[in-house]
Amino acid sequence: MKLISFTYDGRDSWGAVQDDVVVDLGAVSAASSQDLRGAIADGLPKALPSSAPRIPLSEITFAPVIPNPDKIFCVGINYASHIAETNRPTPTHPVIFMRVPASQVGHGQPILRPSESVQLDFEGELAVVIGKPVRRVAVEHALDAVAGYSCYNDGSVRDWQRHSSQFAPGKNFFQTGGFGPWLVTADEIEDPAALTLTTRLNGTVMQQAPISDLVFGVAQLISYCSIFTPLVPGDVIVTGTTGGVGLFRDPPVFMKAGDTVEVEISQIGTLANTVADD
Amino acid sequence: MKLISFTYDGRDSWGAVQDDVVVDLGAVSAASSQDLRGAIADGLPKALPSSAPRIPLSEITFAPVIPNPDKIFCVGINYASHIAETNRPTPTHPVIFMRVPASQVGHGQPILRPSESVQLDFEGELAVVIGKPVRRVAVEHALDAVAGYSCYNDGSVRDWQRHSSQFAPGKNFFQTGGFGPWLVTADEIEDPAALTLTTRLNGTVMQQAPISDLVFGVAQLISYCSIFTPLVPGDVIVTGTTGGVGLFRDPPVFMKAGDTVEVEISQIGTLANTVADD
Repeated sequence: MKLISFTYDGRDSWGAVQDDVVVDLGAVSAASSQDLRGAIADGLPKALPSSAPRIPLSEITFAPVIPNPDKIFCVGINYASHIAETNRPTPTHPVIFMRVPASQVGHGQPILRPSESVQLDFEGELAVVIGKPVRRVAVEHALDAVAGYSCYNDGSVRDWQRHSSQFAPGKNFFQTGGFGPWLVTADEIEDPAALTLTTRLNGTVMQQAPISDLVFGVAQLISYCSIFTPLVPGDVIVTGTTGGVGLFRDPPVFMKAGDTVEVEISQIGTLANTVADD
Repeated sequence: MKLISFTYDGRDSWGAVQDDVVVDLGAVSAASSQDLRGAIADGLPKALPSSAPRIPLSEITFAPVIPNPDKIFCVGINYASHIAETNRPTPTHPVIFMRVPASQVGHGQPILRPSESVQLDFEGELAVVIGKPVRRVAVEHALDAVAGYSCYNDGSVRDWQRHSSQFAPGKNFFQTGGFGPWLVTADEIEDPAALTLTTRLNGTVMQQAPISDLVFGVAQLISYCSIFTPLVPGDVIVTGTTGGVGLFRDPPVFMKAGDTVEVEISQIGTLANTVADD
């Protein structure tokens, strides 16, 4: 099932995408399931009720897949090809930093370049959404906690990311992180490592790698994060980017108003965003 | 006014502390003001309504001052004496990292030492709570956005903080960050730089410094964070710790079950927590 968060006619909701139609599940859900995070916590429906309104996909506005996660953990330096270009040593533990919900933006919406920098860079990544509460989950059971997968563009303002040793400022500019277009539920993806990630800027392939290249794979990342904090439904783990980011190109390539950036993952789909000045 | 978040008789609420009594403001507030974060957003009351229930202070359980902030920004390496002991260069920009709400714990509740480490350390800090929405606020106007001040113990699991370049794992273990006892509203504190911070472990003074020693002061921190993200009511900025943390003592001093740790700030009060094994 492909699940989205969206706004339609001034109302926030969530639903399932079937071809060119959105089944508005928020409209027929209990109060606790009025958003996708709550619906995941309550348990996703197995079938689509006929009572749910059908809306043309072209008429909705995509929100970030989970607009209001309790936590967004991102992973740095987690592909060999990106480790090589950053000139950093291979990490011995996952490199975890965080994003705030306000830094996210939905499919089809503009990623914003702040007036403070021209160094807005793309990072195509696989995002994992947690489906049930886990703490100290073993690696071999960690994938059981996944609700589904999506595409993420971990948009980064490079000079602000390097203001200090900690990445947070450059990773948290308002509406720089694309998240979408939808959540593909875990039952449809047997092995996330079998997927392929591609990032395109204005149609040109900038990044491409199999998810199997991850230094710390999906199950390891879930297990690691669950050691220090209880993971809850709707939590997001953004698994890291591969080689080819704009910063390390010669000359560097940064995003600017009018650009289109796409993150495509096989079996999931394509997250597309334009770029606009904030 | 001293404002707290608390639980009483199985119910979460917030209120004002007057001597040994809590005025239960949550019990008489609109739906949007059922927690302190919402109440700050809606505008705090100027006077205490006589209709609000009075509860003996000894009967409530303190929650973190803001149990559910949208964002918790912490600042590293922000006092000269701490910079010296860490052997790091003086930062040219604020060193910002983040905590998740689940890492917090209220006054009087145990800070938890996880089974994965013996390196649980204290960091006494001044916490600032944002009172109104601001983006790109100038330093000279930044203090106008403050709802009030509190004490914070930025409890740190040192080996996990050093797993990689990014501090998040060691700064986010479940219930390691003391936050309280209360919010002293900004009208009562003319200049946060005039306050003095003291941390005691089992009664022994471990850290002591004037807040004026901050490399980046409260107004600068608010202004900086508001450049990259919209700050909203209830957001927390934890301003950094001073010299004397356990890690850099010879021999190092870490917290263990049975310890009592206190963070006292003049004009605010004392945050006290015991330590227990998770």
